[in-house]
Amino acid sequence: MKWSKNYIYTLKEAPTDAEIPSHKLMIRAGFMKKLAPGLYTYGNLALRAIRKFEAIIRDELNKRGCTEILMPMVHPRELWEETNRWKEMGAGLLKFQNRNEHWFCLGATHEEAVTDYIRNDLKSYKDLPKNLYQIQTKYRDEIRPRFGLMRGREFSMKDAYSFDINQEGALKSYDLMYDAYRSIFDRLGLNYRIVKADAGNIGGSQTHEFQLLADAGEDALLVSDTTEFAANIEVCPAIDATPHVSNEAEKPMEKFATPGQKTIADLSKFTGQSENELVKTLFYSANEGMDPKDKSLKAFAVLLRGSDEVNPVKVKNLLGLSNPPTMLTDQEVLEVSGSLPGSCGPVGLKIPVYMDNGVAGLKNYIVGANAEGFHLKNVNHGREYQPTKTADLRMARAGDKCPDSSGKLVAYRGIEVGHVFYLGKKYSEKMKATFLDQNGKAQNFEMGCYGIGVTRTVQAAIEQSHDADGIIWPRAIAPYQVHICALDPKDSAVMSLAESLERELESQCVDVLIDDRDERPGVKFKDADLLGFPVRIVIGKKGLDAGEVEVVERKTKQVVKLKPAEVHGQVMKFLEPGS
Amino acid sequence: MKWSKNYIYTLKEAPTDAEIPSHKLMIRAGFMKKLAPGLYTYGNLALRAIRKFEAIIRDELNKRGCTEILMPMVHPRELWEETNRWKEMGAGLLKFQNRNEHWFCLGATHEEAVTDYIRNDLKSYKDLPKNLYQIQTKYRDEIRPRFGLMRGREFSMKDAYSFDINQEGALKSYDLMYDAYRSIFDRLGLNYRIVKADAGNIGGSQTHEFQLLADAGEDALLVSDTTEFAANIEVCPAIDATPHVSNEAEKPMEKFATPGQKTIADLSKFTGQSENELVKTLFYSANEGMDPKDKSLKAFAVLLRGSDEVNPVKVKNLLGLSNPPTMLTDQEVLEVSGSLPGSCGPVGLKIPVYMDNGVAGLKNYIVGANAEGFHLKNVNHGREYQPTKTADLRMARAGDKCPDSSGKLVAYRGIEVGHVFYLGKKYSEKMKATFLDQNGKAQNFEMGCYGIGVTRTVQAAIEQSHDADGIIWPRAIAPYQVHICALDPKDSAVMSLAESLERELESQCVDVLIDDRDERPGVKFKDADLLGFPVRIVIGKKGLDAGEVEVVERKTKQVVKLKPAEVHGQVMKFLEPGS
Repeated sequence: MKWSKNYIYTLKEAPTDAEIPSHKLMIRAGFMKKLAPGLYTYGNLALRAIRKFEAIIRDELNKRGCTEILMPMVHPRELWEETNRWKEMGAGLLKFQNRNEHWFCLGATHEEAVTDYIRNDLKSYKDLPKNLYQIQTKYRDEIRPRFGLMRGREFSMKDAYSFDINQEGALKSYDLMYDAYRSIFDRLGLNYRIVKADAGNIGGSQTHEFQLLADAGEDALLVSDTTEFAANIEVCPAIDATPHVSNEAEKPMEKFATPGQKTIADLSKFTGQSENELVKTLFYSANEGMDPKDKSLKAFAVLLRGSDEVNPVKVKNLLGLSNPPTMLTDQEVLEVSGSLPGSCGPVGLKIPVYMDNGVAGLKNYIVGANAEGFHLKNVNHGREYQPTKTADLRMARAGDKCPDSSGKLVAYRGIEVGHVFYLGKKYSEKMKATFLDQNGKAQNFEMGCYGIGVTRTVQAAIEQSHDADGIIWPRAIAPYQVHICALDPKDSAVMSLAESLERELESQCVDVLIDDRDERPGVKFKDADLLGFPVRIVIGKKGLDAGEVEVVERKTKQVVKLKPAEVHGQVMKFLEPGS
Repeated sequence: MKWSKNYIYTLKEAPTDAEIPSHKLMIRAGFMKKLAPGLYTYGNLALRAIRKFEAIIRDELNKRGCTEILMPMVHPRELWEETNRWKEMGAGLLKFQNRNEHWFCLGATHEEAVTDYIRNDLKSYKDLPKNLYQIQTKYRDEIRPRFGLMRGREFSMKDAYSFDINQEGALKSYDLMYDAYRSIFDRLGLNYRIVKADAGNIGGSQTHEFQLLADAGEDALLVSDTTEFAANIEVCPAIDATPHVSNEAEKPMEKFATPGQKTIADLSKFTGQSENELVKTLFYSANEGMDPKDKSLKAFAVLLRGSDEVNPVKVKNLLGLSNPPTMLTDQEVLEVSGSLPGSCGPVGLKIPVYMDNGVAGLKNYIVGANAEGFHLKNVNHGREYQPTKTADLRMARAGDKCPDSSGKLVAYRGIEVGHVFYLGKKYSEKMKATFLDQNGKAQNFEMGCYGIGVTRTVQAAIEQSHDADGIIWPRAIAPYQVHICALDPKDSAVMSLAESLERELESQCVDVLIDDRDERPGVKFKDADLLGFPVRIVIGKKGLDAGEVEVVERKTKQVVKLKPAEVHGQVMKFLEPGS
């Protein structure tokens, strides 16, 4: 493909709304252009990368017996009402009325649509298992779209849905997809982790995220320095590397004045005790109703060491809530404790008190006295107060003990590009989707759902793999693998070598772009670095007269000068997996 | 691919809302399933056909230097306001507000989006010509979706847009796309016509439709029995095969009583004159404003022979209107003529009178007297009244003279599957999209737009190519080309032959489906006929023991019995183009 025959327009500067490197680079390289916030046109080069990634996905899924279909992007309201998600999905689900005043939404996910699709076809256990997938445009009405395709409104996803006769089968389907995803992301050659995650409101109990590692990632991950263990911080078990277990004898409790000492830092300085020996008390509401004033009824407290941070997802899961709990206001804290935050503690509270494991090992500790300007010292649980339950409620952090070895946890930032869920019967029960089992009895399907953010992965690849000059495409999804800079495009020897290399490489399924523009070498090299195809070949008249052509690896910038006949071999060497 | 590994569920009966054969067959074959009116999920087999057609389109467009991109399906209101189409497109354009209360629409076409995409990139005449295309989901809010994918709400289209420096270049781009479309539809091997068409409200002056011929088609076509000429009836010139030209001397006009004679048929019986010698007068309003009562100001009359039908598109084009004119009510006719319809005529009218060519050759004819129950005879234009203009205003019909030869026109029904438009500067002017010409002067782009209904074509192919038993797929887009009925799937010799044929054929890029279900032969044959892949191979244990396998061509139902080793050759023979 010649540059002049394609449509490639690069920019020197990224627009101001591009905040992270991959967004900036995609705009500068002309891979996408904004039509409106969160809505992008993909240029030809980006589309080539997207299509290559789609082909990898299809290959790995088809191999494993999955069947591709294509469901509509516009769904009728009645469908989503069957599962009550018309209400539950909230404002992110874009809803509209058509000219006949019927309500529809733009599909943000397709559990309902696929369950409707199969429910009259799959009649018998003999029809199972089945796994259907699609690659389809999705829409989520983000309030503030940002980071390009990372948090866009319109994007492309691969979503798959499995149907099985029982849980054992469903978990087998889950494992098969887990394996497929591993193969898919392995083929990208990028640095990723498979992490345990929270199921959110999709439902289901077993779930893993596939996270590409990148500093700009929105997710915090903790990864073992010893084993394969990795988890989203939301669900990572928190285990002290050095347990804080006190063997002191219990001392008598005392109330003491702490005027103006409101924060843990204040208190630590004032008392001389380290923050991890102090205990803080946080107040939440477990109300899930829509009335924001109805909080006092279900207030509860959480106790943590002063050095720790609460993990709302762990609290949510402990209490079986659908969403993380909200904090009480200062006024509400006063109502339930008798004091404003800063002097609160568990002693004497009439509401449930959930204690983090970290507090369990402490003795004779300091807590707020529930009286403005006073704390209690030598407090011991089981004596001054009885915790309702003790559990792991804090955020894990780098340096904590790895949950399945003696190693330690290391922190990374990740971009979620894939997600596998075991759903169980949540949707098949609500939508009355059944099959007849071996005994002729109607049973609900056991389901799983499996997503890959197609366009998001392409940008995430760039976020992970770039340098100051531009993109460094992984070979598997590079729009072109080879970029030939024809420095003197009007010279017939230069162009004839460029074209013969193109023919030769394309016959081996290596995609080639020839920069045949009438531009200075500096402009061409800058653009080649920006577009970031894995191998660059530089053919100039002067070099050619001396029998010399340059081959450059984008990633390492290693330059090799060769005779024209040796170029092809060097290119293939640079393109070898693992080179 | 084995049937048991795919997802194929056929139906014996089509649902009652399926009215035409292709819709019925697609539902029965499980190629698609309705989620809501006009919204369909495509099953795996239909998707295979769609993808094959897409691949043909891409191949022919890429060959001709077109560049694929992908634009969003959701567009911001501001974009469509630039061309005023936010209002002009009417209720078919689906509009909605998002959670931030911004207005958007679902793209029904992408002239605005693509013009926005290029307007900061294409700066110089040196960047031109360019032709960008996409294959994208479109949405049109049909009031009454019907005929499956023919008049659906969500559908897939290929739309391309050309940008040129001047009209000459734009017409060259037009011709190139016309040629591409011819190649694309030739490769389908279906019976189609390229017809002249009306540009509708997309704008532009030159336009052709690609019409697949089928009885259920919504468009009426007239095709020459002698030349390549073909036109949509909306724009087909009407030329009498035997001109009605009278050489009589003009006689004196007479008023005569015609009590109760209201229709042309009545009058013909009453006067003994044939319908094509009588002249009828029709009244229209040329008002284009939004106030439906403001008609009297711009009333006009159209004169036609009694045997002819008016063509509103020709009237629209003669008067330069954007939409075909509306007829006056009886009361309005009374106001402008002095009589109710049935006794009206051109003599004495104070409004413009447009005369069809067919009337021009008549003499001494009968028209209404603009007085209830009276007509005038021996009327002659130029004497009793002066027509404002004489033009071709009638519907052409089968039997008319071919406009470019001495042949005659034949009538067909067609399904519009492709459309090429020359747009000129309509969009580039409104959207201020300019480039600098050779003299450094800003010029608006000359544009063209080119559509192919991807999903519609797939259904149209079935509408044209089926029989009482099912679909007869054209080879080029058949989901699979070969259907192996393994009659005894548990017999290892049967399955091993089926699988080795599959391997052999697939190595030559022939797609094979093996029906390995535990079903009776009758069920398998019925399904094979319904699904309609071009070649069927029947392998049964009994036949195999006798060294015999059946190969059947779907189209002709020709059966050939062969030794296993000869099967492959026979299949390839049946699959040869033109076989």
